[in-house]
Amino acid sequence: MGKKFQVAYQVPFYESDINHQIKVPHLLSFALQVSGLQSESLGNTDDWLLDNFNLVWVITDYELDIQRLPRYAENIVVETEAIAYNKLFCYRKFYIYGEDGQQIIEIFSTFVLMDYDTRKVVTVKDEIVAPYGSEKIKKVIRGPKYKPLKEAEESLFHVRYLDLDMNGHVNNSKYLEWMYEAMDIDFLKTHVPKKVHLKYLKEIHYGKDIITRIKQDGLISQHEIKTDQGLHAQAQIEWRERNEA
Amino acid sequence: MGKKFQVAYQVPFYESDINHQIKVPHLLSFALQVSGLQSESLGNTDDWLLDNFNLVWVITDYELDIQRLPRYAENIVVETEAIAYNKLFCYRKFYIYGEDGQQIIEIFSTFVLMDYDTRKVVTVKDEIVAPYGSEKIKKVIRGPKYKPLKEAEESLFHVRYLDLDMNGHVNNSKYLEWMYEAMDIDFLKTHVPKKVHLKYLKEIHYGKDIITRIKQDGLISQHEIKTDQGLHAQAQIEWRERNEA
Repeated sequence: MGKKFQVAYQVPFYESDINHQIKVPHLLSFALQVSGLQSESLGNTDDWLLDNFNLVWVITDYELDIQRLPRYAENIVVETEAIAYNKLFCYRKFYIYGEDGQQIIEIFSTFVLMDYDTRKVVTVKDEIVAPYGSEKIKKVIRGPKYKPLKEAEESLFHVRYLDLDMNGHVNNSKYLEWMYEAMDIDFLKTHVPKKVHLKYLKEIHYGKDIITRIKQDGLISQHEIKTDQGLHAQAQIEWRERNEA
Repeated sequence: MGKKFQVAYQVPFYESDINHQIKVPHLLSFALQVSGLQSESLGNTDDWLLDNFNLVWVITDYELDIQRLPRYAENIVVETEAIAYNKLFCYRKFYIYGEDGQQIIEIFSTFVLMDYDTRKVVTVKDEIVAPYGSEKIKKVIRGPKYKPLKEAEESLFHVRYLDLDMNGHVNNSKYLEWMYEAMDIDFLKTHVPKKVHLKYLKEIHYGKDIITRIKQDGLISQHEIKTDQGLHAQAQIEWRERNEA
């Protein structure tokens, strides 16, 4: 088990949706922010990583188990822990605690280290991950197999200026936003995600046309984000009916 | 002079743009959050206002004077003060202080109280604004006259699910986002706003087609947000060249 690090957060108005719950893409952004703050607290900043190794952290997979979503103005705690790493992958968990102290969400995430110039994944160096106190393992933890969507409903989007982050690529959270936008608003008003699997395959640049594809079968939705350069992200979401209580 | 209230904030990665500066629409969202927190600290919550008076706060005008924008990871302080009010309008300032303690931005904003059901503006009641300690004045403080844009470049947008906030309307910050998206990315990479005037006229609902109109003359850009129901927002932005130093 690795070192834990946590940050308290109050869900702001501007990140709450029409159901008065936190927007899930924002929750992922904030969680990532917390892991960045942990790295900083350990002296392992992104600048240090870039200056000394020419590397950047890239997230490849998320798995969210959601018991309930934080509500508008709720005081939550986001805790993170680097669980383990092997030759190529680093595994990190996030635990979200509600205002009553109960754990309401667990996120399992997979990171790789990528060379800034070649954009190739490199072997994890012990000295880079040592400060997190996570365990070195041999096992590769695999997410689900995403089957390609043969038939799907498609919607067209366009990468916007404000979709880009400091690296000039589309920010991670936008992929999930596009997946949400492919769904029916009446479904989104009456359902919440229970389990989310999300996989990132390739970066997207400014000006690209995005196709967000969806195949929904009852409470399961499957998603793809494509451009003319192929597949960039895949997801599978299991939904449950919203409990107004 | 009214009571002051301030919140410290570190500019997060996911709200920083390709220039490594805070996204301006987000800055407005956060400022609004701070005024909400002040109201809460005074027991004047949105729920109290709605339950007792059937009223909601609506922002009608922003004027931003920007010396420089906060940088990624900079620790800033956002301070707010309800300056004055008259029969219909409440005036509030926000002061943004950089990590060195210097004021870097001043925002002047105008609010009205709107009946939740009729969506009509109502007279400001003294008991609603008394807790802020602001001065009652007779003068109406007017923003600039925005001339209608006869000729303009137009881009089409579509209101998205995640553009909506808890009230089911498009969130305030989205109007300015659409205005940004109408601009040339190379201009946005090399310029920063110096003075922003922004006026909200009418709410926008889900599913609407948005036309963002722009007329740019050197370092001045004029903006309009329209739908088939007419004009919803207007802005004028004065830009300056980015100083890389």
